[in-house]
Amino acid sequence: MSKINTERLWQRLMDMAAIGATAGGGVKRLALTETDRQGRTLFMDWCTSAGLHLRKDTMGNLFARRKGLDPQRKAVLIGSHLDSQPSGGKYDGTLGVLAALEVIETLNDLNIATQAPLEIVSWTNEEGARFSPAMIGSGVFAGKFPLAYAYQQKDAAGTSLEQALQHIDQLGQDVVQAAEFAAALELHIEQGPVLEAAATTIGVVTAVQGIRWYRLKIIGHETHAGPCPMEMRQDPIRGLSELLPQLYKLQLSLPLSQEERTAARITVGELQAYPGSINTVPAEVHLSIDIRHPDSSILDQLGQALEQVVRQLASSSQLDYKLEAVWHSPPQSFDPACIKAVEQACQDLKLSHQHIVSGAGHDAVYLAKVIPTSMIFIPCRDGLSHNEAEHIEQEHAFAGTEVLLQAVLQLAN
Amino acid sequence: MSKINTERLWQRLMDMAAIGATAGGGVKRLALTETDRQGRTLFMDWCTSAGLHLRKDTMGNLFARRKGLDPQRKAVLIGSHLDSQPSGGKYDGTLGVLAALEVIETLNDLNIATQAPLEIVSWTNEEGARFSPAMIGSGVFAGKFPLAYAYQQKDAAGTSLEQALQHIDQLGQDVVQAAEFAAALELHIEQGPVLEAAATTIGVVTAVQGIRWYRLKIIGHETHAGPCPMEMRQDPIRGLSELLPQLYKLQLSLPLSQEERTAARITVGELQAYPGSINTVPAEVHLSIDIRHPDSSILDQLGQALEQVVRQLASSSQLDYKLEAVWHSPPQSFDPACIKAVEQACQDLKLSHQHIVSGAGHDAVYLAKVIPTSMIFIPCRDGLSHNEAEHIEQEHAFAGTEVLLQAVLQLAN
Repeated sequence: MSKINTERLWQRLMDMAAIGATAGGGVKRLALTETDRQGRTLFMDWCTSAGLHLRKDTMGNLFARRKGLDPQRKAVLIGSHLDSQPSGGKYDGTLGVLAALEVIETLNDLNIATQAPLEIVSWTNEEGARFSPAMIGSGVFAGKFPLAYAYQQKDAAGTSLEQALQHIDQLGQDVVQAAEFAAALELHIEQGPVLEAAATTIGVVTAVQGIRWYRLKIIGHETHAGPCPMEMRQDPIRGLSELLPQLYKLQLSLPLSQEERTAARITVGELQAYPGSINTVPAEVHLSIDIRHPDSSILDQLGQALEQVVRQLASSSQLDYKLEAVWHSPPQSFDPACIKAVEQACQDLKLSHQHIVSGAGHDAVYLAKVIPTSMIFIPCRDGLSHNEAEHIEQEHAFAGTEVLLQAVLQLAN
Repeated sequence: MSKINTERLWQRLMDMAAIGATAGGGVKRLALTETDRQGRTLFMDWCTSAGLHLRKDTMGNLFARRKGLDPQRKAVLIGSHLDSQPSGGKYDGTLGVLAALEVIETLNDLNIATQAPLEIVSWTNEEGARFSPAMIGSGVFAGKFPLAYAYQQKDAAGTSLEQALQHIDQLGQDVVQAAEFAAALELHIEQGPVLEAAATTIGVVTAVQGIRWYRLKIIGHETHAGPCPMEMRQDPIRGLSELLPQLYKLQLSLPLSQEERTAARITVGELQAYPGSINTVPAEVHLSIDIRHPDSSILDQLGQALEQVVRQLASSSQLDYKLEAVWHSPPQSFDPACIKAVEQACQDLKLSHQHIVSGAGHDAVYLAKVIPTSMIFIPCRDGLSHNEAEHIEQEHAFAGTEVLLQAVLQLAN
């Protein structure tokens, strides 16, 4: 028996999906475009109708507050983002914002007051699809990036983020600070296949994986595919052939538990041989390596193991290996009390649930640095996201919103 | 003690290299361009001065005949090509043509007549850099391609080969037939590192490798690098990781002699992951596979072994493998008598020499189908060719020309 108004929630998800709807059934609502402005306006109208107090900060992040009974209590922050990928889905981000609104609408309907204030948030430019880096709105809020840095970021057309904020009249003047909040929760689709495969309704997100990005160039000697005997070649693809099997076993080379091994993610996303001619031994092969783990120390060990493998290959061959560490995002553990609140809500609601680590970045990662934070995941079909075919089951959306409601009630009372 | 005039030969190589000379020290003399016309004119002027009878066939192949004592004897054909790659070297092709001319100049200087006529040839569009396919001039001569097919071939600007021949006035009317020739010899730089590494002056070329070209697509499922556990992925790079080590051992999987194994060439020249994003497990990886062997049966076995490896990988994984055989050029053995003539010349001249198989294609491959043919190789520095830095030692050029002279005398008397 739902407390929330499932019809209202689903209708609002569909109404929001109509803004920037694509022919393929998805959404294109790039940050700070006219389409984004329309989505923001619709959201703010709903918030105003719900009696909430609106604020807009200098990054265009939108806040909508419902008062608490105790004016001394810090607020509970709930929300996500309304911007999308260029060929995005209907639920990535939007579900988290509209579920937060539904939580408050439900409390209004039921005349339930909370001790602490509640505040919905919709963060600017989470996707990073128009302005880089991703999660820049929550990043500035959490002190990760200076405001001036964010303002200078430009889209592909050369428009700065500051100009874009001004252009759609979303550059606010309200000062909203992390110190105002006691806790933060973000409901989001998993964007992976784990919950669906386990037939679990709720993912209790305990942490976000740390990420290390590398780029590797294996440099050999370009030569004709015919005349040069194989043993006289400096063929970078031979180097790749030795590297890949070791790369995919990096986690097995460390003294880890089964669980710790399973948590490791190793991905070669970019791979290309140069010059790339069918009858020429390539001069170079370039690849990217993305390593993820929720444990900071294990992530570091995996990075060191990679460097060791590359060093060994380089010392035992005539090929040149240039490994460059290009980015590092440490793992972020979520707050035990927030995790506990979500878990308790699942138990109370008798929903199947399991601990899960987020593989993707979220605004909650930056929030967690300044506010006790955690996340709630629901399954999405085939783990598909950043795709027009992104799909969730209604029952999962409703269950996730109920969990958010119950967890908010615990944290706000 | 050289019989040939080394100074004249080297000067002519340099004079020809000046036509289309590049800033980087190489040559750009694309087939049937104005630059090619200048090179052809210079060559024909030299031939005329040497008292030779010029012919030009409908493909623009140039022939220059020196009479023999016996009007019943078929001629010995010697030569190569004068066109170059866009960033080619000074010696690829040109050495073979000008060494042939030097052979005849030397015989003229020494007043040596041969029983059989001698004929120099310069083939049109050997490189395939302007018009595809390569070796089209000798291909039409040998009946590999119909003339009409060759005429229809177009360069990148849409100019047909026939138009290009007409434009530089090189579309001849002379009928030159394979039946006129008793033997053919082509001197060429090795374009590989074997002779240089062995410190051998002359390669006695016994055959040209057969080639099989494949393109392979390994198709998986695109997914985010974070959320999806490694064991739940359909990662095509994992498929590549299993394929490559087996690919480079294909020749070890067959019951071959050491020599037969060493003669195999396996090359992955093109390799690219799609869509190619650092934090995305690729949907597909595409690669080319170039397999070469001088023995037709072994080449077939290597191709079958590749198909077997791909079948096994496909059956043991969730990935889809699409292997396509895109081209097949059978091996070409050279004529034993021609090989013997070259070998005998090396022995008589006390030059270090060894049997070698050509890994690259040459006009001689097509000639060998209609005329008893073989080739003579000399070393080139670092095996480098199709490159402005292509370099040969003068002594090797002279030695190769002396061998050509001695072999011609054997075959023509």
